[in-house]
Amino acid sequence: MTAPEALRWSTENCTIAAALDVMGDRSTGLVMREVFAGVRRFDDMRVRTRMPRQVLADRLARLVEAELLRRHEYREPGQRRRHEYRLTPKGFDLYPVLIALMEWGNRYVAEPGGPPFEAAHLGCGEQVHVVLRCDAGHDVERPRDVAFRPGPGARPRTED
Amino acid sequence: MTAPEALRWSTENCTIAAALDVMGDRSTGLVMREVFAGVRRFDDMRVRTRMPRQVLADRLARLVEAELLRRHEYREPGQRRRHEYRLTPKGFDLYPVLIALMEWGNRYVAEPGGPPFEAAHLGCGEQVHVVLRCDAGHDVERPRDVAFRPGPGARPRTED
Repeated sequence: MTAPEALRWSTENCTIAAALDVMGDRSTGLVMREVFAGVRRFDDMRVRTRMPRQVLADRLARLVEAELLRRHEYREPGQRRRHEYRLTPKGFDLYPVLIALMEWGNRYVAEPGGPPFEAAHLGCGEQVHVVLRCDAGHDVERPRDVAFRPGPGARPRTED
Repeated sequence: MTAPEALRWSTENCTIAAALDVMGDRSTGLVMREVFAGVRRFDDMRVRTRMPRQVLADRLARLVEAELLRRHEYREPGQRRRHEYRLTPKGFDLYPVLIALMEWGNRYVAEPGGPPFEAAHLGCGEQVHVVLRCDAGHDVERPRDVAFRPGPGARPRTED
């Protein structure tokens, strides 16, 4: 058997790994879910995620640092100043990741009653799905019709 | 300010959380990347992910248990029996998650030389992207045009 082609290439500058550095943590995924669901305040997120205060604060701080969220100050009458968390454009662009995760979850790990929420197109109210499409405009019907290949930043792997 | 609608609903049966239970871990994401890249053998994955042997073995075992991967036996002449790891259909259906992560990474965290690999459509060779589309056939142009809403399995949240 010949070695897989992928073994010729370095994984050092892998962008999946880099994206996982930002998103690849269950708690971080839950925080992003909250913000996409319109839940922006620390105490509300606590209720919905049941995360320990310290963990939630840590994940929010990291997401602000990574510029996926920004802090927005508000003050309600008679209360002290507080912050809520809003998506930056960089954060918003993770929507396909969240929806792809949700679709997979809805298909394979939903409870018998069906999924608790779904993504809707605001224009028409229909459900939104993730689709794979190529630059020639073809829909990719089967996952087997996609393959990874070296891109412009591919570096040969040096022997370890 | 009124409370976000999402606060009315329970997150107990959330399918994003359930999907993150399977995929929401950096090491697991890297293992899935390897299998999608055609790297199926333990020692090859070790070289490419630089993961400690024990961590890699643990992630593979969990992915087999979750039925995303299956073990396939092989034996090379003069060697002992070994296993390689192949995607099940359930595992293959995570492709959109991986590609969505890669696209986000390519856009926001790639090194100046560009991304080290890309997804290609086997039919025509063009690059594959993740697109959001609704059941009415509309492409969703802007992430802001999508909103989460309660689905068939939505349960009201009970007071904690």
